[in-house]
Amino acid sequence: MNTEEPHGTPGTLKVSAKSNPNAVAGALAAVMRERATAEIQAVGAGAINQAIKAVAIARSYLRDSNIDVVCVPSFITVEISDHERTGMSLAIERRTHAP
Amino acid sequence: MNTEEPHGTPGTLKVSAKSNPNAVAGALAAVMRERATAEIQAVGAGAINQAIKAVAIARSYLRDSNIDVVCVPSFITVEISDHERTGMSLAIERRTHAP
Repeated sequence: MNTEEPHGTPGTLKVSAKSNPNAVAGALAAVMRERATAEIQAVGAGAINQAIKAVAIARSYLRDSNIDVVCVPSFITVEISDHERTGMSLAIERRTHAP
Repeated sequence: MNTEEPHGTPGTLKVSAKSNPNAVAGALAAVMRERATAEIQAVGAGAINQAIKAVAIARSYLRDSNIDVVCVPSFITVEISDHERTGMSLAIERRTHAP
């Protein structure tokens, strides 16, 4: 996980297969308490697995704040060591409760 | 993918690491044209990866129908060959557009 990339966007969390889902969840929950949206980027099955686990855990962290979140997956192309790879972006949004 | 489990719930798609994301996406899109919600169940990093890809692909399939979907991940316990394993459930919901 890296939330302080030189070219990073605020609220963008980069998750790898080695990321700790609980730590990512804590970072995501902190962002979602302050902002309406965040983004998780993950490349590879291991990373995407950790990212989804992190969202599920963050939902439990955010329950006390009466916030629930949903994720909207899409494909992204990221450059890793001068090679283009296809990864997933998970747009995280506060859930809109039906009226 | 198995949409016709004997004990399956309508709208529940079981995805494995060997599932074809395009095929799962087609099945998910078909369900989401008819229903407000669906569920994808996946156990293991490979399966979760295919499931998330399928949701991203289904979003493009559903664009022509002016439907967008979000997913809400949570942990589930599933029994596989008499062993309990932790997997992920992705609740798929039509996106509520802000007014």
